[in-house]
Formats: sequence, C-alpha cells, structure tokens
Amino acid sequence: MKKMRRSARLVDMTQHLLAHPHTLIPLTMFAEQYGAAKSSISEDLSIIKEAFESQGVGALRTVAGAAGGVKYIPQMKTEQALHFMRELIGHLENPDRLLPGGYLYMSDILGHPATMARIGKLFATAFAEKNVEVVMTVETKGIPLAYATAAYLNVPVVIVRRDNKVTEGSVVSINYVSGSSKRIQTMSLARRALAEQSRVLIVDDFMKAGGTIRGMIDLLQEFRATVVGCGVLVETADVTDRLVDEYVSLAKLRDVDVKGKQIEIELGSYFHNREE
Amino acid sequence: MKKMRRSARLVDMTQHLLAHPHTLIPLTMFAEQYGAAKSSISEDLSIIKEAFESQGVGALRTVAGAAGGVKYIPQMKTEQALHFMRELIGHLENPDRLLPGGYLYMSDILGHPATMARIGKLFATAFAEKNVEVVMTVETKGIPLAYATAAYLNVPVVIVRRDNKVTEGSVVSINYVSGSSKRIQTMSLARRALAEQSRVLIVDDFMKAGGTIRGMIDLLQEFRATVVGCGVLVETADVTDRLVDEYVSLAKLRDVDVKGKQIEIELGSYFHNREE
Repeated sequence: MKKMRRSARLVDMTQHLLAHPHTLIPLTMFAEQYGAAKSSISEDLSIIKEAFESQGVGALRTVAGAAGGVKYIPQMKTEQALHFMRELIGHLENPDRLLPGGYLYMSDILGHPATMARIGKLFATAFAEKNVEVVMTVETKGIPLAYATAAYLNVPVVIVRRDNKVTEGSVVSINYVSGSSKRIQTMSLARRALAEQSRVLIVDDFMKAGGTIRGMIDLLQEFRATVVGCGVLVETADVTDRLVDEYVSLAKLRDVDVKGKQIEIELGSYFHNREE
Repeated sequence: MKKMRRSARLVDMTQHLLAHPHTLIPLTMFAEQYGAAKSSISEDLSIIKEAFESQGVGALRTVAGAAGGVKYIPQMKTEQALHFMRELIGHLENPDRLLPGGYLYMSDILGHPATMARIGKLFATAFAEKNVEVVMTVETKGIPLAYATAAYLNVPVVIVRRDNKVTEGSVVSINYVSGSSKRIQTMSLARRALAEQSRVLIVDDFMKAGGTIRGMIDLLQEFRATVVGCGVLVETADVTDRLVDEYVSLAKLRDVDVKGKQIEIELGSYFHNREE
C-alpha cells in the first residue's frame, strides 16, 4: 500500500480502466492500491468519466452497493464513427481493389491493427447491451475483427475452421453452401472450444448471400447457443435471397462496375437511425 | 482550441499515448489540442512518464528539437513477464491439453484477447529496437499473436495462406516441409500484400522443427525482405535438426509423457539473461 499523488493516480487508473473494459472494478481495489480514501477515488473517477465522455472514449458506469464498483464501457460516438467509416469507404472505393467475383481486396485494411481496433470498438458499441459471452468467426479474414471486438467486450474468441482436419478431440462439422461459389463446403468446431448455451456474437468481414454466417448459426445450434447478434464490415446490396435476417453492417457495397472500374459503397445498417 | 484542466488533460493524454504506441507525437499537437503552454505539457508528460515506469506500462521517450515530440514505447518488466508466463505455463501443463503428435491444445488460451495482448506486449518488448515494419504469420493460430504484437509496435500484419487459392492477383507460392508431418505443403502470399525490402518480424504460436517458419523465411526472400526476428509462444525441446537458428520463445515444451499424462514446460529463450 503505497501512497500516490492524485496526478499519478489519474494516469494509472486511466490505463487500468482502458485495459479492463466491461469489467467491474471495486472502488476498494483502487483505494487499497493507491492508499487513498474511497471518497478521493470517487472524485478521480468523476474526472475520468468526464474526460472519457467528452473525448468519446466511452462511458464509466458506477454500480452502487457493497458489491459495487466502476465499469468502463467502450463507446464510439456516432460523429466519430461516421468520420471513420466515410474515410474507410473512401479507401474501399479505389477501383484497384476489384477482385474476380465482385469481391474487394481488403487485406491491407484488415492488416492494420489500429483500423481493426476502431471497427472492433464500433461493434462493441453496437452490441454492448447484448451480454455477449463469446465472439465467433470463421477463418481467416474475420479473425482480426473478431479479436478487436472481443477485446473491447472482454470476452473470448472462438474460431470456426473451414475444414474438418481439426485435431482437437471430438468435433462438430456441418456442410453449408457458400453463397458466392454455390459449392458445398464444410466448417468445424471442436466440442471443447465452446461451452453449451453460450451467448454468441458472430463477426465477419464480408457478407454476400450470407451462406457462411448461416452456416455458423446452424453450427451454433449444435452447441445450443444463442446468437445475440451478427456484425459484418461490408455487405453487398445486390442480394435477392439473403440467408441471414438480422445483422449489423458498417458498409454496404451498392454497385460494382467491373468494366467501368467503379465501386460504389455507402454506410451500412449500423448508421440507420443514428445519422443526424 | 478548448482549455482543459490539468487533471482532465492527464486522463486524455494517457489514453492518447496508449492508443498510439511507437508513434512520435509533437508536443505542439497536445499544446494546441488542450490550449496549454508547452511547458505545462512537458510537466504533464513527466508525470505520465513516472507513472508508466513505476507501473510497468512502458517508457515515454522524448525526442528533442523542432521535429521532436514524445513516443510511448510499450515495455513489460521482466518481473511482470515472469509472473505472467509462470501462470500461463501452469495452465499449459494441464495434461488434458495433450493432443496427438505431441501437440498441445491451446485454442482456449489463444482465444483470450487479454492474454494475447500480454504476449503481444512481450514480443513488442523483445523486438522494440529492431525497426519492425511488418509482422508476418501463417494462418490460423498465429494470427491473434501477430495482431497483438503489431498493435504494440504500430505496424501492419501480413498473413500467409496455407494454400494457393488466393484470389488477390499475382501470388508467390513456395513448397515447404512441415517438420511434424514431413509432408510437402504450400504457402502463398499475394504480391501486393507486402512491399519489397520490408523489415519483417515473424510470429507464430508453436515451433517444432521450424519447417513452417523456415518456409516463411524462404518466402520472404522472394520479396527481398529482411527478417529482423522470429517470436514463438511455445517451442519444443526435443529437436535435433532445427531449421531456424535465431528466434525468441516464451516457453519451451521440455517433455511430454503421453502415457503418464505429464507435460513439462519451462521458460523460453526470452528469459535467458533476463532472469534474476
């Protein structure tokens, strides 16, 4: 128990809260760690709360009572989200990104941890109240999005494999039809990878007809899980028979003109009801 | 330009520095943002520096001169690293983790963003002075480690595919012999995914003979890249003919007794010369 000045305490509490999102921290923990009165800790927290809110870092939620404490809820303001997504859409509309089959080259964007962190924070904002217990994705490109989201929600990630060569004990496999290739494919998850009846958020980078996400939803039935939401970075607009009903997209691929080398992308469903 | 009290400024500067590791931030940027004198900002930074150092968050490095500023270098203290890795090794030595072929079930551990963040910080500490420009890994299990490391180093991630079905334009593929299965396998990377002559840090979760990492090193020659280091979470000790010479491991699988259900793991090469 070492006494610390308020200024040093503020720095350390800030980094501790940021490193432990969606985690209830008892005020007594801070009080003991810094050798400070609970009233001083409360004052510190109101300073941090105000700074977090005014800078759009997130909310500090105080839970009263003996089992109480403080919880940092990462939140991105709509204004920040719009600014970020408009910039990202600007990058995505570069015609050099066109790939066969109407896909977009996104590996460079998906390779930037700071960009992933922002997208993860957006999904964590969208699903903050869903009591997510696990974030799930399928290999490979959705993985960084899933981790970024899970980090802000403070929950683990489960990765579905695209084969059944899993060497991790008993495995649940299902066949699904990939919307793009129309071929039957397999996805698998080790039985021990996911506790039964978990509340699962599905995250992926790209959704056309939704076959891959539908596959994950079907796979989750085998684990008696509850799908509390689906988040995709980019959805395509030209789908007549979508296999997934409810999802949050951050961007929507409106039109791809391969010949004319034009890509048209707009804001996704995340921004419905949010845009000023 | 909005005036802010010192306490609020400290909170906001702390979160800004943590969100931008290995990035030079000009003092004038902070001064303008908070409507404060540069001398006040300098005082704030010395408070943050002291708090970061005493709590083992990392170092603040000040660069003098007109183009100067401050840079947050994430660093984990050896004492914290030892504590963390001993706890992790305790989890890994659980005999339920034994998989066919002398592998360990690690998906649950690799699924925890907070654990990945700590491992990433360890690798970022080990390779902080190597001027890493890109972190590379091969799908699938090394991906979260690569992102966690890259986030602390503020560089992008490049993911090598285990097939050559890459639809991202011209692709470089090589064949390699996986040390464990002794089969010839293929790995590929799109030409556009990595700039020529990059300084690359290779990260992976597990290394036996080192065939996979050797494959990545060979692949990188095609991009005229410099391999500035290799970091693996777990290496195995029973290797006579290692295909990779220089690497940093965090843990070493000393002995696996499948019959007796015993796993023996010790600290890896990261801790040579570091242990008290």
